[in-house]
Amino acid sequence: MSNPTAAILVIGDEILSGRTREANAYHLAGELTRVGIDLSEIRVVPDDHDVIVEALNALRERYTYVFTSGGIGPTHDDITADAVAAALGVGIDVRADARALLEEALAARGATPTADQLRMARIPDGASLIVNGVSGAPGFSIGNVHVMAGVPSIFVAMLDAVLPTLTAGVPVLSREVRFEVGEGRIASQLRQLVADMPQLTFGSYPFRDGEVRGTNVVVRGTMPALLADAVARLESLRTSLANRT
Amino acid sequence: MSNPTAAILVIGDEILSGRTREANAYHLAGELTRVGIDLSEIRVVPDDHDVIVEALNALRERYTYVFTSGGIGPTHDDITADAVAAALGVGIDVRADARALLEEALAARGATPTADQLRMARIPDGASLIVNGVSGAPGFSIGNVHVMAGVPSIFVAMLDAVLPTLTAGVPVLSREVRFEVGEGRIASQLRQLVADMPQLTFGSYPFRDGEVRGTNVVVRGTMPALLADAVARLESLRTSLANRT
Repeated sequence: MSNPTAAILVIGDEILSGRTREANAYHLAGELTRVGIDLSEIRVVPDDHDVIVEALNALRERYTYVFTSGGIGPTHDDITADAVAAALGVGIDVRADARALLEEALAARGATPTADQLRMARIPDGASLIVNGVSGAPGFSIGNVHVMAGVPSIFVAMLDAVLPTLTAGVPVLSREVRFEVGEGRIASQLRQLVADMPQLTFGSYPFRDGEVRGTNVVVRGTMPALLADAVARLESLRTSLANRT
Repeated sequence: MSNPTAAILVIGDEILSGRTREANAYHLAGELTRVGIDLSEIRVVPDDHDVIVEALNALRERYTYVFTSGGIGPTHDDITADAVAAALGVGIDVRADARALLEEALAARGATPTADQLRMARIPDGASLIVNGVSGAPGFSIGNVHVMAGVPSIFVAMLDAVLPTLTAGVPVLSREVRFEVGEGRIASQLRQLVADMPQLTFGSYPFRDGEVRGTNVVVRGTMPALLADAVARLESLRTSLANRT
C-alpha cells in the first residue's frame, strides 16, 4: 500500500515577483514527511481567478490532499475562497459560524468587523472551518482541499489543526552520509547500491564547503533495518575511499 | 504589448521531502522582474521521468520561456537531460563540445572524466550549451527551454549566461508603502484606488512587528509617474489615518 499524496498550491504575486521568499511549502514538506504523506507537487500561481481554478482542479484530481496558501484576507487581492468555490462548483457566502469567530477576535481588540473584514467569513457551501489560535479568520476544508492563510504563523497554526484529521501513511525515514569527494568519485558505486536496494531511494547532493568538494548522500525508506544496512555500506565505501587517498 | 512570460520547473525530491529549502526560483523571480519577463508559474516535481516530461510539455507550450533547475549531475538520480530530450522528441548523446568543457575543468584538478561524469556531457540534439565559469558541466538551451543546475551558485552563473539571450520586456517597477494598521482598516480605500488606477496592480500584505499589526501595500506597474501618483495617494491615506487616532 502506498502513502497518501499531497500538493500545495501557493497563490501569490508577491512570490512570483521576487518580493517575498516562499516559506509555507517548506514547512508543509517537513510536516507531511513526518506523518507519511508524500508531498508530490508544489505549484505557485498568480492572483488570477481562472488560473487558480484550473490549477486547483488539476491538483485535487491528482493527489489525495491539496493545500492552498494565500489569498484569504479582507482586501481586493484576496480571491482564493471564491476561486475554490468556483472550482468545486458550489456557492459561497458569509457564514454565521465564521462570522462569530471573526467578531470574537475583533471584539478582543474593541472592534467590530467592517464590510471588508466580513469577506473573511465567506465560506464555500459544505466546507468545514479550520479554526486556529492565531487568527480569528478561519481557513476551511472542502472535499480534499484545505484552504489556509499565506501569513506563515497562521499557516503553521492552521496546518496543526488540519494534520490530525488526515489519513497518515508510513513515515519515510531518511539518513544522510557525507562524503568529502565529488559526486563523480562515488557515482558508480552508488549506482550499484541503488540496484541492490530497490526498496530504498537514494539522492546525491553535491556541496562545496570552502576548499572541500563533497557529496551528501541521502537514503530514504520506511524500513529502519534496511536504512541501517544502506548507511553501513555507504560508510564502508567512504572508509575505502579515504584509505585510497 | 504584454511582457514575455516564464515558468520554472524545479526537479528535486530533496525539496519535496523538506530536506532542502528551494532557492533558485526566488533568485530567478528577482532577475526576471528586473528585465521585464513575468515569472508566471513555479512548479516543483519529483525525480520521476514521466512526471518531468509531462510538466515540461505543459509549461513550454504555455509560457515564453521555461527554466529547469536540478538533475543534471553525474549520478543515478540525474535524469533531467533525458527527460528534456524525451519531452522534445529528440535524441541525446555525449557531445564533443560539452565533453571538451568537462575534460578541461577536470584537467585543472589533474583528473579525467569517469564514465559517470561523462554523462554530464550528454546533450539533446539541437541544443546549445550554457557555458559558465563555476562548473565545467554545462547546462543547455533547446527551443524555449533552458536547463540549469540545481546547485545555487551554478544556477546563478548559468542564469547570468542565459539572460542576455532572452527577449526582455518592459521592467515592472514596484513601490511599497507601510501602514501601521491592519488590512481591514484600509481595505475599502484600497479597493477604490484599485478601481481608479487600472494600469497598476496593488498587493496588500499583512505583517506583525512586535505589538504592531501592519500592512505593506505594494504597487506595481511600468509607468513611474503613475506609480508616484499611487504612492502619493497611499501616503495621504496613511496621514489621514494617523490624524484620526
